[in-house]
Amino acid sequence: MDITEFVEKSIGCWRSQRSAHHLAFAHFEAVQSEIDIIALSETDPAVLELCSTYHVDPSAIASPFRMSWEGQSDWEDSEAVKGTCVLVPVPDLTQANCGKLLRDQGYAETIAAVGEYSITADGTFVLITAYERAAAEEKIWFVNPNVRCRVSLIKTSAGTGVVTASFSSEIRQTRPGS
Amino acid sequence: MDITEFVEKSIGCWRSQRSAHHLAFAHFEAVQSEIDIIALSETDPAVLELCSTYHVDPSAIASPFRMSWEGQSDWEDSEAVKGTCVLVPVPDLTQANCGKLLRDQGYAETIAAVGEYSITADGTFVLITAYERAAAEEKIWFVNPNVRCRVSLIKTSAGTGVVTASFSSEIRQTRPGS
Repeated sequence: MDITEFVEKSIGCWRSQRSAHHLAFAHFEAVQSEIDIIALSETDPAVLELCSTYHVDPSAIASPFRMSWEGQSDWEDSEAVKGTCVLVPVPDLTQANCGKLLRDQGYAETIAAVGEYSITADGTFVLITAYERAAAEEKIWFVNPNVRCRVSLIKTSAGTGVVTASFSSEIRQTRPGS
Repeated sequence: MDITEFVEKSIGCWRSQRSAHHLAFAHFEAVQSEIDIIALSETDPAVLELCSTYHVDPSAIASPFRMSWEGQSDWEDSEAVKGTCVLVPVPDLTQANCGKLLRDQGYAETIAAVGEYSITADGTFVLITAYERAAAEEKIWFVNPNVRCRVSLIKTSAGTGVVTASFSSEIRQTRPGS
């Protein structure tokens, strides 16, 4: 599976159940959210701006998309979890199914980030993102066309300790009128 | 990674945080447990009995082990979650890092079961078990020598619908005196 096929399969509206395990405290957090993934044009201004920020030639990108989410955590005093970001894959020219993923807002820290992705032989999308004080490792795979699983690990920047392990099960929603 | 190495890395005592997502109801269940995995001799009576039940030549097996767990779910009125089972890998002679896994007690139904395992190029152990009324698909991988992740999916027996998706993060415990 290449990145274009992976993004195509991801486009849509998903209902997500996410459990975060804060390992040091053996704490469970539960988050319910709705995730919207929409395809963007390669000439979308937000895509071109992200390319410019990272000095990437817009002709080198594939299947840019926008991901938006809105949900609720069961943590005390938690506010609504809400956000949106633009993601731009830049396939590696020399290695099949590997590349960079530009993002205008990260998960672990709310700053722009560049991750390294690869897609394994069994169709799992693996993304590794190094931040200043942490590293994120994410695996996403499709169980069937309407169910996606996602495991995200937040590690210390040295990459040895795991701080948070979280799991999302995402079910495709049918849009009214579709 | 072959099955012997995978089992060796798994031997020990683990503290597990498990979140189960019951997808139809968007329900979260949280389970905390302790898991003990110990190596068994290939001539252990329980191993030989399991081989006999499934008509497997004991000389064809590799790295049998026992897994025991005890924990607590946050479901209302839940009793302690407790169990033990013997697992016996039977590597495929013609296909590397694939084989059968005999088990004297299943997860999804408390009956003996035979699953089909494979270990992917990136070291993920994948186990598929068909039951009479359900199918279970499990992925286990090591983040580092002391952290294991496990995703289990329970599907309808036709294999299309996902009923429960659960995720465990498992941290190796230091034994007193070790």
